[in-house]
Amino acid sequence: MNYKELTRQIKLDSYQMSSLPLSLRNQALADIQDGLFRQREKIFAANQEDLDSAIRNQEPQPIINRLVFDHHKLDDVIQGLDSLIGLPDPLFRTQLHRELDQGLVLRRETCPIGVIGVIFESRPDALVQISSLCIKSGNCSILKGGREAAKTNRALFDIIYETGTNAGLPAGFMTLVESREAIDELLHCDESIDLLIPRGSNQFVQYIMDHSRIPVMGHADGVCHVYIDKDADPDKALPVIMDSKVQYVTACNTLETLLVHRDVADELLPALVDSSYTGSVELRGCPDTMKIIPCKPATEIDYKTEYLDYILAIRIVDSLEQAIEHINRYGSHHTDCIVTEDQQSADTFMTLVDSANVYQNCSTRFADGFRYGFGAEVGISTGKLHARGPVGLEGLVTYKYKLTGNGHIVADYAEGRKKFNFKEV
Amino acid sequence: MNYKELTRQIKLDSYQMSSLPLSLRNQALADIQDGLFRQREKIFAANQEDLDSAIRNQEPQPIINRLVFDHHKLDDVIQGLDSLIGLPDPLFRTQLHRELDQGLVLRRETCPIGVIGVIFESRPDALVQISSLCIKSGNCSILKGGREAAKTNRALFDIIYETGTNAGLPAGFMTLVESREAIDELLHCDESIDLLIPRGSNQFVQYIMDHSRIPVMGHADGVCHVYIDKDADPDKALPVIMDSKVQYVTACNTLETLLVHRDVADELLPALVDSSYTGSVELRGCPDTMKIIPCKPATEIDYKTEYLDYILAIRIVDSLEQAIEHINRYGSHHTDCIVTEDQQSADTFMTLVDSANVYQNCSTRFADGFRYGFGAEVGISTGKLHARGPVGLEGLVTYKYKLTGNGHIVADYAEGRKKFNFKEV
Repeated sequence: MNYKELTRQIKLDSYQMSSLPLSLRNQALADIQDGLFRQREKIFAANQEDLDSAIRNQEPQPIINRLVFDHHKLDDVIQGLDSLIGLPDPLFRTQLHRELDQGLVLRRETCPIGVIGVIFESRPDALVQISSLCIKSGNCSILKGGREAAKTNRALFDIIYETGTNAGLPAGFMTLVESREAIDELLHCDESIDLLIPRGSNQFVQYIMDHSRIPVMGHADGVCHVYIDKDADPDKALPVIMDSKVQYVTACNTLETLLVHRDVADELLPALVDSSYTGSVELRGCPDTMKIIPCKPATEIDYKTEYLDYILAIRIVDSLEQAIEHINRYGSHHTDCIVTEDQQSADTFMTLVDSANVYQNCSTRFADGFRYGFGAEVGISTGKLHARGPVGLEGLVTYKYKLTGNGHIVADYAEGRKKFNFKEV
Repeated sequence: MNYKELTRQIKLDSYQMSSLPLSLRNQALADIQDGLFRQREKIFAANQEDLDSAIRNQEPQPIINRLVFDHHKLDDVIQGLDSLIGLPDPLFRTQLHRELDQGLVLRRETCPIGVIGVIFESRPDALVQISSLCIKSGNCSILKGGREAAKTNRALFDIIYETGTNAGLPAGFMTLVESREAIDELLHCDESIDLLIPRGSNQFVQYIMDHSRIPVMGHADGVCHVYIDKDADPDKALPVIMDSKVQYVTACNTLETLLVHRDVADELLPALVDSSYTGSVELRGCPDTMKIIPCKPATEIDYKTEYLDYILAIRIVDSLEQAIEHINRYGSHHTDCIVTEDQQSADTFMTLVDSANVYQNCSTRFADGFRYGFGAEVGISTGKLHARGPVGLEGLVTYKYKLTGNGHIVADYAEGRKKFNFKEV
């Protein structure tokens, strides 16, 4: 396939996509919701084929779990579409409206980014989520799903594509690519693709970033921290630590390194070991930690590692400042939490920790578009440009400046015949 | 010099910089204003040295003109600082405040980006503008100015640096680098530098984009268009064309290709040739244009070229749609204008043209932070992520999500013991 030509065509369709009224985009989403429900048996059958292959290929259990697309998943997807339809239009919003001078009026208005390439992992419901967010925000999407979910993705795509185009979306509104080679081709289509959102392993995301001029939104890894301050309430500390670590151990917002203030280490660490959960978690401690509880040693490599596993690094620190320094140095600017009852320490932590999500007294696992009330997310960004943290509809739009005059020229202002007279409208 | 170590140190200072109150940042700006005025003779003397070298080296006149830093420039700079001090704080602004559940409160708050590297051309007043925007927005800046302005830049830097640190800004708030080699070193400091803003030639900006993982904000070139619609008012068309082309011919927002609807070409083009200005502008036309007026032929290369010179490409188009297609295909998504009295055509143009600035009936030269009332700009972005168009204070900040709980854990929600209850605060 000629990907340059394919994406150029999608780009042309993206202009049409950018001008569709909300009513049409919402109607398309409603039709898609209906189509997915009516053709659910087709989806379940395709999913069964994927599951059979995965079991035959002895894929690890977490991958198989993520692959499942059953009645429950369909319910979730349909509910998600409901809430998406209910959200206000992210497009055509006036963000600034200013008269620069008589008859010269500036407006800043939101518009779609254009063509977005999303490479996602094995969960097939992600395909519905991402494509529907793109429809609502007027973007064309190019999707590459995980190999394990190929048949389910194809079934979902066929239904969404047919229903969407029937509802009046342009032919290029959504494209499914199915080969690994396609990714390398797409990385070079920087003239037509405006944004890449890779969801996958650290190495994979780094690879994408290093091999394309196209801007990338997302995160490479999630080395998240919980810091137990000297003024922590121990009744909050243990549940927050354990939930952050084990509630869903392979998620990017999972705790990897626990920092403990020296003053409370003697009390907290043995309690952590005693806690009913901890048996399942391998602890790796700094030398001071090893003096208090039995554990393996943690090296500097541990502090930089996203385990995504039942392993927890522990380091004792002397101060709030040392905790902040550790996090900014070894962390990945994703999600970090302080457990403290001292509001000033919390404020300092939340100001100085350079992460997308900074928490006080709650689990790092809350870092998620649904839990933030965004309806859905295309991913979590640890970059500081454009969207940061969980990215929903708002992260899929940009804006343009529209200036309307009446024959106004700059020479009049540069040569003093006229003066700007800024006035908010 | 070890740039990795230097930038790591600046990064550490950037955390301190991010927490300074507005009063301190504004006081520093006021002190800098004062310092520049008191030590003005030192600046003028350094500038004279730069000017002498430039003349000795037979630099082109436009470069020499841009180099000048005299009383007028000082007045501009001091006025610019006045208006910057008067602007509201871009930091610590709450953009979202939502209760997720009882006692679990999410806030999205603006914060600085961190460490910003700016590479700018020969105008030394840019150094003051950029560094003061970074101070106001709590960012540390690493500046590399043009070789021709080395002595002026050094004098300005010394004054700003001394005054700024005396006012309480951290040592790393601003750094001047002076060798070309430094740029290549800085491109690899992606762990410490958060954003690059290159201002310079197309090739230079492309080079930066291709050789660094650090996100880049700016524009490579500015191939801007004016489209004269069939419903254009001829009295507006000519002044808009000529102002867009010749008001400041080397600017990025200058007109490079004129598109003319076939229905009005017979009338407009001869008038353009007759217009008093046109003698100085070389016209290059499509075959149809050449049938109407005497001019050189325009090739496809012309349509892609940013002349930055007294040259204008002209193409006759059959429709609004063809004009839009031409602009989206050959343009650089910078600034494009339609001249028309038909509001529907204007709306279609402004929706479908994929540029940062889309205009009706006014000169493309208005694309500028000052003229938009932003007080100042660090540059103009043609990217679609983060800031687009002229970039002022707002483009120099990001945000973080701050979540405050009371021991809240995700398991309670995942296992149905609690439910989210989103409520805007």
